[in-house]
Amino acid sequence: MVTPQKTALVVSAHSADFVWRAGGSIALHVSQGYAVHIVCLSFGERGESAKLWRKGEMTEDKVKDARRTEALAAAEILGATIEFFDIGDYPMRADRETLFRLADVFRRVQPSFVLSHSLKDPYNYDHPLAMNLTQEARIIAQAEGYRPGEKIVGAPPVYSFEPHQPEQCEWRPDVLLDITSVWDRKYAAIQCMAGQEHLWEYYTRVALQRGVQAKRNVGITSARDIVYGEGYQSIFPRVTENLA
Amino acid sequence: MVTPQKTALVVSAHSADFVWRAGGSIALHVSQGYAVHIVCLSFGERGESAKLWRKGEMTEDKVKDARRTEALAAAEILGATIEFFDIGDYPMRADRETLFRLADVFRRVQPSFVLSHSLKDPYNYDHPLAMNLTQEARIIAQAEGYRPGEKIVGAPPVYSFEPHQPEQCEWRPDVLLDITSVWDRKYAAIQCMAGQEHLWEYYTRVALQRGVQAKRNVGITSARDIVYGEGYQSIFPRVTENLA
Amino acid sequence: MVTPQKTALVVSAHSADFVWRAGGSIALHVSQGYAVHIVCLSFGERGESAKLWRKGEMTEDKVKDARRTEALAAAEILGATIEFFDIGDYPMRADRETLFRLADVFRRVQPSFVLSHSLKDPYNYDHPLAMNLTQEARIIAQAEGYRPGEKIVGAPPVYSFEPHQPEQCEWRPDVLLDITSVWDRKYAAIQCMAGQEHLWEYYTRVALQRGVQAKRNVGITSARDIVYGEGYQSIFPRVTENLA
Amino acid sequence: MVTPQKTALVVSAHSADFVWRAGGSIALHVSQGYAVHIVCLSFGERGESAKLWRKGEMTEDKVKDARRTEALAAAEILGATIEFFDIGDYPMRADRETLFRLADVFRRVQPSFVLSHSLKDPYNYDHPLAMNLTQEARIIAQAEGYRPGEKIVGAPPVYSFEPHQPEQCEWRPDVLLDITSVWDRKYAAIQCMAGQEHLWEYYTRVALQRGVQAKRNVGITSARDIVYGEGYQSIFPRVTENLA
Amino acid sequence: MVTPQKTALVVSAHSADFVWRAGGSIALHVSQGYAVHIVCLSFGERGESAKLWRKGEMTEDKVKDARRTEALAAAEILGATIEFFDIGDYPMRADRETLFRLADVFRRVQPSFVLSHSLKDPYNYDHPLAMNLTQEARIIAQAEGYRPGEKIVGAPPVYSFEPHQPEQCEWRPDVLLDITSVWDRKYAAIQCMAGQEHLWEYYTRVALQRGVQAKRNVGITSARDIVYGEGYQSIFPRVTENLA
Amino acid sequence: MVTPQKTALVVSAHSADFVWRAGGSIALHVSQGYAVHIVCLSFGERGESAKLWRKGEMTEDKVKDARRTEALAAAEILGATIEFFDIGDYPMRADRETLFRLADVFRRVQPSFVLSHSLKDPYNYDHPLAMNLTQEARIIAQAEGYRPGEKIVGAPPVYSFEPHQPEQCEWRPDVLLDITSVWDRKYAAIQCMAGQEHLWEYYTRVALQRGVQAKRNVGITSARDIVYGEGYQSIFPRVTENLA
Repeated sequence: MVTPQKTALVVSAHSADFVWRAGGSIALHVSQGYAVHIVCLSFGERGESAKLWRKGEMTEDKVKDARRTEALAAAEILGATIEFFDIGDYPMRADRETLFRLADVFRRVQPSFVLSHSLKDPYNYDHPLAMNLTQEARIIAQAEGYRPGEKIVGAPPVYSFEPHQPEQCEWRPDVLLDITSVWDRKYAAIQCMAGQEHLWEYYTRVALQRGVQAKRNVGITSARDIVYGEGYQSIFPRVTENLA
Repeated sequence: MVTPQKTALVVSAHSADFVWRAGGSIALHVSQGYAVHIVCLSFGERGESAKLWRKGEMTEDKVKDARRTEALAAAEILGATIEFFDIGDYPMRADRETLFRLADVFRRVQPSFVLSHSLKDPYNYDHPLAMNLTQEARIIAQAEGYRPGEKIVGAPPVYSFEPHQPEQCEWRPDVLLDITSVWDRKYAAIQCMAGQEHLWEYYTRVALQRGVQAKRNVGITSARDIVYGEGYQSIFPRVTENLA
Repeated sequence: MVTPQKTALVVSAHSADFVWRAGGSIALHVSQGYAVHIVCLSFGERGESAKLWRKGEMTEDKVKDARRTEALAAAEILGATIEFFDIGDYPMRADRETLFRLADVFRRVQPSFVLSHSLKDPYNYDHPLAMNLTQEARIIAQAEGYRPGEKIVGAPPVYSFEPHQPEQCEWRPDVLLDITSVWDRKYAAIQCMAGQEHLWEYYTRVALQRGVQAKRNVGITSARDIVYGEGYQSIFPRVTENLA
Repeated sequence: MVTPQKTALVVSAHSADFVWRAGGSIALHVSQGYAVHIVCLSFGERGESAKLWRKGEMTEDKVKDARRTEALAAAEILGATIEFFDIGDYPMRADRETLFRLADVFRRVQPSFVLSHSLKDPYNYDHPLAMNLTQEARIIAQAEGYRPGEKIVGAPPVYSFEPHQPEQCEWRPDVLLDITSVWDRKYAAIQCMAGQEHLWEYYTRVALQRGVQAKRNVGITSARDIVYGEGYQSIFPRVTENLA
Repeated sequence: MVTPQKTALVVSAHSADFVWRAGGSIALHVSQGYAVHIVCLSFGERGESAKLWRKGEMTEDKVKDARRTEALAAAEILGATIEFFDIGDYPMRADRETLFRLADVFRRVQPSFVLSHSLKDPYNYDHPLAMNLTQEARIIAQAEGYRPGEKIVGAPPVYSFEPHQPEQCEWRPDVLLDITSVWDRKYAAIQCMAGQEHLWEYYTRVALQRGVQAKRNVGITSARDIVYGEGYQSIFPRVTENLA
Repeated sequence: MVTPQKTALVVSAHSADFVWRAGGSIALHVSQGYAVHIVCLSFGERGESAKLWRKGEMTEDKVKDARRTEALAAAEILGATIEFFDIGDYPMRADRETLFRLADVFRRVQPSFVLSHSLKDPYNYDHPLAMNLTQEARIIAQAEGYRPGEKIVGAPPVYSFEPHQPEQCEWRPDVLLDITSVWDRKYAAIQCMAGQEHLWEYYTRVALQRGVQAKRNVGITSARDIVYGEGYQSIFPRVTENLA
């Protein structure tokens, strides 16, 4: 008998979010044998491509192409598959069709866990929209009455990855993921984002801070040597048989 | 080389709290090989022994004896060791000496995780006091400068177990523990609490509700058959290498 | 002079919600002479009819019929009138027309109080939508400029009834309703819900827990014998001339 | 058979707090036949008697005398009994003896409801202390094991009255009391506070604002003519058989 | 070289909101040389014109005309420019076109700060919608990819002005603006609102209370004589070089 | 006439806290002409001197001496005066005498603003204690009845500086201070803390992240070039005449 491969789903509002915020988690779970699938709802063509626009002679299609290329390269380095919904950004809006499209991805992927944005972000209204869309798609994919006969999904845990200004988003990490073993791959993926070079060092520092904090929460007597981390906030309670 | 036994620490404001609120967790981890140690700060002689007092001809010493006997019996069934600080209840007050006594327990036990009360409880001011005492004792036990030369403790996770009226205590479980395999032992321990028989069915129902909720959060497609549960709220973020 | 009958309005996202969550309140107020009217926004045909779908040979219309029959029977037992908006579930969406339709119900019913769902529910996005729709419809029904000339509504209190996993929905009851006198009727209504038999005992336990808590909040010296309860969370402050 | 008189207890950190914040409630319940008892923990001799101190030639005893006289006059106008614990203010501290003294008042008064300060107040640390002391005293008075044999108290509802800067104290009224019928008496009591004349108009405006808000929450179609109000925040859920 | 004039933007859901809630701020900044521009999303023709509707023989157009006249007069007194989007109220809905229209206002005005409603208001769903629209429009106006080539906006601070029942809206002022010097102008603007005369004294009292509170937060030793105030809640952190 | 020098007060639980968390603010205000005074409640001799204790042959006095030397050097670099209360740490406890001692510092210094710790910190119970002590001392120093005749203090704003794990402390900065111009001095002060070298880079990264965030909240179109920042959370509302 074949054990089915474990899977995970990442829903990214713009085509670079998954790199800064969840790149370590993606690479880590890939290294553990998971098939990780990324959905980019938009390319961030309007709101997160300032450097490209400033070059001049630019069109929305050219920006999208450049962003797609970067995202594909980053996903490949991280070892994940990726698809683009191309629903537009600034503002992002999701109709019923997009919701069903994402619910269908849930059914197809059958993820063991799901990552998306924080539920609040006063700096970026596309981010909470992406998370709410993700959560509602998950709920629909769980319903027997949606496309009856298909295999429904269970109740995979959902996590918010770290927003740009965490405290302003009322985001509080309750999970610190040790990504030390895959940091090189995350940083290589980050370097694909040529249009946002100003963020490379910012997110390197985020990873180092979360690493220090992870070490603190394990205890200084631990043998575990954590250098880089990623923070996550759980939406649902965790079900377990062990509290250590 | 011998692997040291894993351990856990439970701090109970009154001598029956650990049974209703954490009995499943204690029995479960004992069944997994943990040495679980319980500290009862008081016997609940004033505030939680109404039935005994109504018998008449009662003294505080008689009440304490009855409560100690019940707690010892329950701890034995659960497989845990137990000690009594006897600092009084209603009101509970902890001086510096009590704080150090508990810090010393932390150092001696070196727990892998710690359980105590919720941080708020408008029905019972002893409960938050017990939790704050536990947290401050843990912090002191971590400090190199407290009894220098002794082995300090790491950063064991701390959980709040379920209070009597959870929503009024602003308690929200982020962990649901599957205690189905040890429910018989928990219910046997519950039955030691002769003085509070009105709570037996109450906490059986709590366990059944948390069991249903645990099942929901795993997903109905899961093979796992959970019947009884206990809820816990984490104080600190969890450090991990896997999000599933 | 005839005193007009007192009335109440219950807005239920799916056709069974009003039974589990507000059945006691409905029966109790009916027994006090209130005319209670229920609006079911959908039949829960997709999201809350898993057992029916698993029977096979099922269509959405058949599911709706079965659910309508159950809801009608339950409403009759509770003594309430009921109507079905049939706007669909999973996802539920409410357009302007639905909003006005519900505002018109407010005007027609002129309720003394209103019951609907919690404002948050990460397990079910239809529930908060129903509550928000209810609140906005109430606001519109209060406005002189909406269908000018009609009798506007006052400011009836609005309550959230209990969600399935209360703490995860950030729901905190500030009212505990004693439904002991009508429990038989509520349980009879519950038994109409043949498709969700797994919830019968769950909500019986909820009623018993809320009953114990109600008794605690009255005080053990009270003569009042409360066995079954329902919890509610107020949206607006209560106006009164007595604090006891 | 004689029905015992209904009673209420008000715990005031300083000797004028009960007037500004609960004077309407006191007069209203007295007019309904309640025996209302006030405990002033201190005279506010240090922190709330600036005008007296500025007169010069002042001693703490003279300030206390002046404040006692004012408080006695106000209590008489409101129709309540009053006692002074004289435990000092700025800072207020309550030892075990004070706690038991207040618990004994609870047992003696057997209040139907209890009023005290908000749980947070960054402008005045005595206020939260008074509320916490009140709540802990209530808990102790409920315990069979405290002074066994005495009549314990039930579970009277506890309310926070309005602090000076409500939003900064995270205080949110969930009860708006209509004090229109007794406003004259409250304003007469307010005028006893010669040392704090700058607050007379401030608290008149508070009463008018809460009156307007009360009217809004009843609905403009109501016949009820509310002019003056007081806001309260409940600590515990209310147990009832009617939601209108 | 000419220093460009400083500017501010106020987004008002209904045509009178800006007067009650931000009139002092508008007049004050005008007196400091700012060009303040007001956008009224609707005339409040349905929901906030009860007195007009009760006159009889009224149509929506007549109500709008009356409200426009009042708002124009008030804006003139305050010294601000004003425009009307006329998107309707009760319910207010904003489509993509309205969002872009407001984003274009941001680009044109280039405001130094922005004022709109609170993010929650259970009494009025148009208010949070207006604030969310404002915030999303600001975000779009910041994006290089929206109408590329236009001058984008910086990151002007955004404030929520005071709602009618502040605590119920979870609104907490972190800024108290001293409007003493311009109170006459604010009160003159208030008097333009002939249709809502019942609110004149209500908002005078609000201004007096916020004035007293401002004085308290400066300290009684201050020379500054504050009589009237307005409260604001910041959405974003303030960037500064001085903490006094 | 001589304008009195502006002053500020910093209350630090342990002797290094003021460096990591407020060093930039101290140096910045000193450079603006403020006299900044620091109170260190303890030396952090038990809890924050692990490296010293691990050297062996250590006593509490030796640790205190080493820490005093470091703190004096850092204060000198920053340009502030400093005093040591030496009340002990792990656990820190403040009696009435300490409270009055700090109130007397408030009266002597007459600060324009005050800095201390966050109100919550599950990793360190000394920190909230220091902040609560600071706030209560400020309140006492404001009271005419405390040491009558002395000059009382006004209402200086109080800020929480940044804790080690901000989100876990429920700390949210609402002020971002631009410390770019004094970063060199802050980093020089940091280097005095020989015993905690592992924190040097951690707090450099904190300063860089807050700098980036400050820049974002000013807007990318701003000329202002911010590199280093410090975050603060206000306890009280700010009183102002300008919102830009």
